[in-house]
Formats: sequence, C-alpha cells, structure tokens
Amino acid sequence: MAKRNAFYAQSGGVTAVINASACGIIQAARAHRNRIGKVYAGRDGIIGALTEDLIDTSKESAAAVKALRHTPSGAFGSARYKLKKYEEDRRQYERLIEVFKAHDIGYFFYNGGGDSADTCLKVSKLSEQMGYPIVCVHVPKTMDNDLPITDCSPGFGSVAKYLAVSVREAGFDVASMARTSTRVFILEAMGRHAGWTTAAMGLASEAEGEAPHVLLFPEIPFEQDKFLARVDATVKQFGSCVIGVSEGVQNTEGKFLSDAGLRDAFGHAQLGGVAPLLANLIKDQLKLKYHWAVADYLQRAARHIASKTDVAQAYAVGKAAVELALKGHNAVMPAIVRKSDKPYRWSIGVADLNEVANVEKKMPRDYISQDGFHITEKCRRYLLPLIQGEDYPPYRNGLPVYVRLKNVTVPKKLEAGFKI
Amino acid sequence: MAKRNAFYAQSGGVTAVINASACGIIQAARAHRNRIGKVYAGRDGIIGALTEDLIDTSKESAAAVKALRHTPSGAFGSARYKLKKYEEDRRQYERLIEVFKAHDIGYFFYNGGGDSADTCLKVSKLSEQMGYPIVCVHVPKTMDNDLPITDCSPGFGSVAKYLAVSVREAGFDVASMARTSTRVFILEAMGRHAGWTTAAMGLASEAEGEAPHVLLFPEIPFEQDKFLARVDATVKQFGSCVIGVSEGVQNTEGKFLSDAGLRDAFGHAQLGGVAPLLANLIKDQLKLKYHWAVADYLQRAARHIASKTDVAQAYAVGKAAVELALKGHNAVMPAIVRKSDKPYRWSIGVADLNEVANVEKKMPRDYISQDGFHITEKCRRYLLPLIQGEDYPPYRNGLPVYVRLKNVTVPKKLEAGFKI
Repeated sequence: MAKRNAFYAQSGGVTAVINASACGIIQAARAHRNRIGKVYAGRDGIIGALTEDLIDTSKESAAAVKALRHTPSGAFGSARYKLKKYEEDRRQYERLIEVFKAHDIGYFFYNGGGDSADTCLKVSKLSEQMGYPIVCVHVPKTMDNDLPITDCSPGFGSVAKYLAVSVREAGFDVASMARTSTRVFILEAMGRHAGWTTAAMGLASEAEGEAPHVLLFPEIPFEQDKFLARVDATVKQFGSCVIGVSEGVQNTEGKFLSDAGLRDAFGHAQLGGVAPLLANLIKDQLKLKYHWAVADYLQRAARHIASKTDVAQAYAVGKAAVELALKGHNAVMPAIVRKSDKPYRWSIGVADLNEVANVEKKMPRDYISQDGFHITEKCRRYLLPLIQGEDYPPYRNGLPVYVRLKNVTVPKKLEAGFKI
Repeated sequence: MAKRNAFYAQSGGVTAVINASACGIIQAARAHRNRIGKVYAGRDGIIGALTEDLIDTSKESAAAVKALRHTPSGAFGSARYKLKKYEEDRRQYERLIEVFKAHDIGYFFYNGGGDSADTCLKVSKLSEQMGYPIVCVHVPKTMDNDLPITDCSPGFGSVAKYLAVSVREAGFDVASMARTSTRVFILEAMGRHAGWTTAAMGLASEAEGEAPHVLLFPEIPFEQDKFLARVDATVKQFGSCVIGVSEGVQNTEGKFLSDAGLRDAFGHAQLGGVAPLLANLIKDQLKLKYHWAVADYLQRAARHIASKTDVAQAYAVGKAAVELALKGHNAVMPAIVRKSDKPYRWSIGVADLNEVANVEKKMPRDYISQDGFHITEKCRRYLLPLIQGEDYPPYRNGLPVYVRLKNVTVPKKLEAGFKI
C-alpha cells in the first residue's frame, strides 16, 4: 500500500486529555513512517479541512508532541461546527474529499463526540461513492460520557475526578465552619443532558454524613418541597449540607431551572447558574447561610488533577486509531472494553461507526438512588475505576508547563476557497 | 517552670493549610512533653473555650496528627465569632481566663487573621491584670494575605497557586475554541477588601497574549467603558479574553458591583457573583459569547494543589509558636521574614502583637499596572515565590485521603455554663 498522509481534527468542547489522544495518534503515525506520511491537523477542527487551513505536525519536535499528553485544551484548535445534513449540503462533504485529495490524505482521524462520529461515517461513505479511498476512524472524546459501546468517553474521567476531589474538599471546609457560618454549599457541574458528571461527585461520599449529601440530576425532575425538606433534614442531622447539581436540572414541566429564574437589573434573563438560584431558594425558604460555586471550564481544563486512567485511555484510543487504520479497519471507533471492575482492567476493542453515530448513552435509572438524591452502589462500581490514579504535569515557577505548538501552516494547493 | 497545658483554636475562614499549623503546634508540643502537658483544642474555635467545649488532642495518634499537614479545613472546627470589645463585654474575656485556669492552661495559641490577633493581645493583657499567667501567641492565617509584618499570610499561597493554575488551564481551553465558541471567560476570586488573590491570577500570564488578559482589582474603581474597550481590543488582538475579577470590585461610587445588579425572579437581590454580572454586560455590549466560573470555597479548600511553600510556612509558624512560647515570648506572632526573592529564602521572626492587631496590609498601588488591568513586575517578584512547589496529599480510591479526627471532649470542670 502506498504511503499516504493523515488528517487529524479535534471537535467540540475540549477536555483535559483530548491532546493525549492527539499525542497517541501522532506518535503512532511516526512509528509507522513507512505507511503514513505526514499528519496534518485541522486548524480549529474540521474548519481547517474545509478552508484548507492545515497544520503540519511534522514540524513539531518529539518533545513537543510528548508534552501534548499533559496539556489540556485542543492544541490545534477545536470547533463547535456541525456539518449540515448530507442531503442538505453535499458540497461540504465533497469539499472535504477535495482537500484530502489535494494533500494526498488517506486517513481521517476525527476526535470528538457523537456529532463527529456521524461526520466521520458520512465522509467514509462519500469517499467510497467518489472513488477516493479514505480510511475514517473516529477517536472518542467527550466529558459528557454519552458515547455508546465504549466503557467510557475519554475526557470524562478527569472531569469526574476534579468534581469528586473538589466537592470533598469543599465538604471538609463547610463542615468545619457550619456552626457559625455557611450551612449549605452548592457545586454546579456541567452537562446539560445526562447526570454523569453530577454522579461523579457522589464518589466523594464514602460513609454516611460525608459530602456531598444531595445530588440533583437532569434525569430526576426537580421537586422544590422534597428538595428543601431533604436539605433541612441534612443540616439538622449533620450540621451542614453539600449539594452537587447538574446545570441540566429541570422542573417537572421539563424546563431548565437555570432558564426559569434570574433576571438582571435590566430584566434580561441571566443565563447559566442553577447553583445561585438554588442558593437563593434555600436562603428564602430555610433561612440558612449558603455559598455556591460554578466550576464551569475549570472542570474540563483541570489537567493538574487529571485521572491517570483517563489519560491512559485517551492516549490508547489515539494510538489504536492509527493501528486500526493500518490493519484495514474503516468507519470504526476504538472503544474501551471493561474486563473487570476491581481491579479495573480494560483493553481497546473496535466499534462499528454505524452503531456509534446518533446513539446517546444515557445514565441508567438504577445508577440513581430510589429517592433520586444520590448514586447507587452499582453506579459507584462503574465510576470509581475511571478516576483512579494521578497524572501530574511538570511544573515550572509553581505553574504547570503546558505546551504551545508552533502550528506551522501547510501551503495551500487548491485555488478555490471555501466559505464557512 | 511547671508543666502546663496549652489551648489551641482556629479562627475565621479556614484554608487549605491551617491544619498544617495545627500539626506544627501539636507536634512541637509533643516534642516538649516536659514543659507542655496536653494540647486542648477549642471545638469550633474560641466558642469551645467560652463554652468549655475542649478537645483532647492527646487522644489522636501520631499518624492522625501528621495527616493534619495534608488535610484542608479546620480539623477542630473554626468559627466566625468576634469577641465584643473589651470595654463592652469584659465578661467574655474573664470567662476565657476562668476556663483556662480550670484546665491549667498556660499557653494560648490562636490561629487566625487580624481579629484573632487582637483577641490574643487582649487575653494576654487581661491575664496580667487577673494575675493568671498565660503565654499568648497568635499563629498567622488568612487567605486574604492582609496581616502586617509577616512576608505573607499562610493560606494565601495555596489560594494563589490554585487561582493561577486554574486561570492558566481555562485560558488554554478558551483559546483553543474561540473561533466558533466562547470568546470571553471570567474567573471570580474571593477577597472583598484587597486584590491579592486576583493579583495571583496574573502570575499565569508569562508572555504577551497569555491568559489572564484583564484583571479587575478592588483597589481600582470599575469603569465600564474602559473595561469594555479593553476586552474588545483583547479579543480582536488575541482571539479571546480571559478576565480575573475580585468579588470586591467596586464602581466609582465605592459600591460593590456584586450588590448593584442582579435580582431574581421575585425581585430579591442576588448576592455574590460579580462574574455573571460582567458576563451579561459583555454579552449585551460586545455581543460576545462568554463563560464564567465562581470558584468560591473550592479555592481555599484546594489542598490537592496546595503550594509547597505555603504548607511549609503554615507548619513552621505553628512549630515556632510553641518554641517562642517556651522561650518566654508573650503577646507575639511568629512572622515569615523574606531573605531573598530568587531563590526564595525565608525564616521565622517575631512580631509584637501590638503591631499586628488592627493593622491591615494593603496591596501597594505599584503592584498594579498603570492602566489598572494587570500586575507589575514588582508584584510578580513578590508573589511568585509563594506558589512554588507542589505538596500532593496521599490518594486512595482516586480521592485524596483527608483525616477526620476523633475529637474527644475533655470533661468539664466548671459548673457555670456560658451562653454565646
């Protein structure tokens, strides 16, 4: 088989470990120089492919590529850019193939969540139709943990660890001052559609009375009276109450709480922040002193407290993507296969993209306790392996050293531009 | 000199390292068993002394005491409880002496900020007047970094490190997605009165264009137009803008921004959260996509990313407090003395409590750049040593192992109770 170049792009919200997947891909490609030429990365994800704005990763030193493993964010730029439906705008997909053809790209590695799996599959189909062969491999990534088949989605384990560590620490803080100060603390987690991140906070509570005491999941409709009664009882029993809440919590009419309440001084809706809303409710109804935190991007960027397991898996799916491609797999995704819970053993399997695209993994109802306010043992058994191990980045001047790549642009070969 | 017991209490907002000071005190006292009997801790701080609710730390194993060094929060409970002025309620101070007398307490170690330094001094004076000798030593602690004389306040360095690390990580995240997603990210820091914590975020920016790009200090009145122009210019030049803001930022009339704006759906003032307020402003005026985070207690509880320097200093002031007391010092505070910036060398000196109580260390104006939006080299030189080194806690099951003490109560000896 002739040596051909590869294209790699990062898609959607970045994580603490998506660059570890990039590292796995580039290192694996470099280990197979006889089969893979250069790895080109899309500047700002798939936009880089559409606009022929490619980055030549061969210009990066081995040390820089290695440092990707401990650098959060998307080193080549990621994009929230969803290609239109194939039937609506076939032109976008054709353009991708044109750019790939112009740069002799025979491998397409797309690192993202559900949408990018779908794109990857479509490019694969079109490549057949257009008679230009491209091996398409989707590399799983999403802090939302909602990709099917794979045991978990790389990126999630590190958010899970960050949230569990943070809520434990805040719980210690609040408990030690509850007598004269804050009684209720609320930590808000990202994740609009599923409660995976909120569930992860539950790991910090290893015995009765340990924070967090109450979790609010998007899967469980919010009932104000039941919630307030629970908080009140917790404060009475344990002195303080730590609450983990998903930004996606909805009321019984299916409306996001965060959209339902706050207005600023001008009457504009205040976007985001269900934690302050709950805090106000608790102050008004229970007259308790509160504090709240919204970690927002800090949680998905927190490479300093990344899960070692997550880093290893992110790297492994990147490396496996290249190896699968070279073995002749096409339209697939390397998937993490759980072999045992304790000790956690896993390997990399292969998932057919037809079974990945447009399928969302929901959190099972039996991962949430009967009363809806905490996680079950079954959930704990699933989640706990994913936060195992620390993988500290190097430090200089008291701060983590994250790499900034040179990101040298590949000269354009096409005359036509493309408007996105 | 006869062997006498010691009393230790934690005061005010807890930190990631106040227990390291407790560790220093208890270990040093145990090393001088010939001079110091038991170390009693106040349950919930000074309230424990007033109500004769004492904890017998001799019931804790050496391993548990050692683990205090890596455990955030206040292990014996801390309190926001300010004693009334001596002239207004002499009774409180007399009660302290009565409790100390009943339990043969000859050493008073009070671990806190400016208020507790003042209390410590008053107890010392009263002990003379009442003819019951108590050696009083204040052990410095405050994340606000506003204690005078000492080079810094233990607790601050770890908040500084947490904020600098977090804002760097968020900066990488935002920059990598700015083309199609968030352009402006705002991280809010605690600290109503001085900009020390906000200044610490500035350390993450080591070269032009690196986050954070704009800092808003309580020392600099907020001017909306100037601020918006700066954000706009930053986004145009660098693609994104990361803002660090102090919760204590005030408008030109000296009113907290956080009190000036948000109302919830019922028209109640929304307390806290200047970050969402600025975010809304940016959305309205500049039409830029934003995200914001309020770290709140996470920043002061984040023992997982504590500064090694801070931990060492917190431990050292605790140990030194005992040694100073045994050397005959009274009404003093162990103070950190800076000997050089680079490498940072420091030792422990002695400060007279008369010079500590009721004196607040402000951030010098020349630590803030001329335009008011960033820190100067002078500030960087001061701050950088304080975040040096990592001091990771042990982990089990993927989570930091923090100690929960037995906190065994000392039998009461006084018949009279005390109502707080």
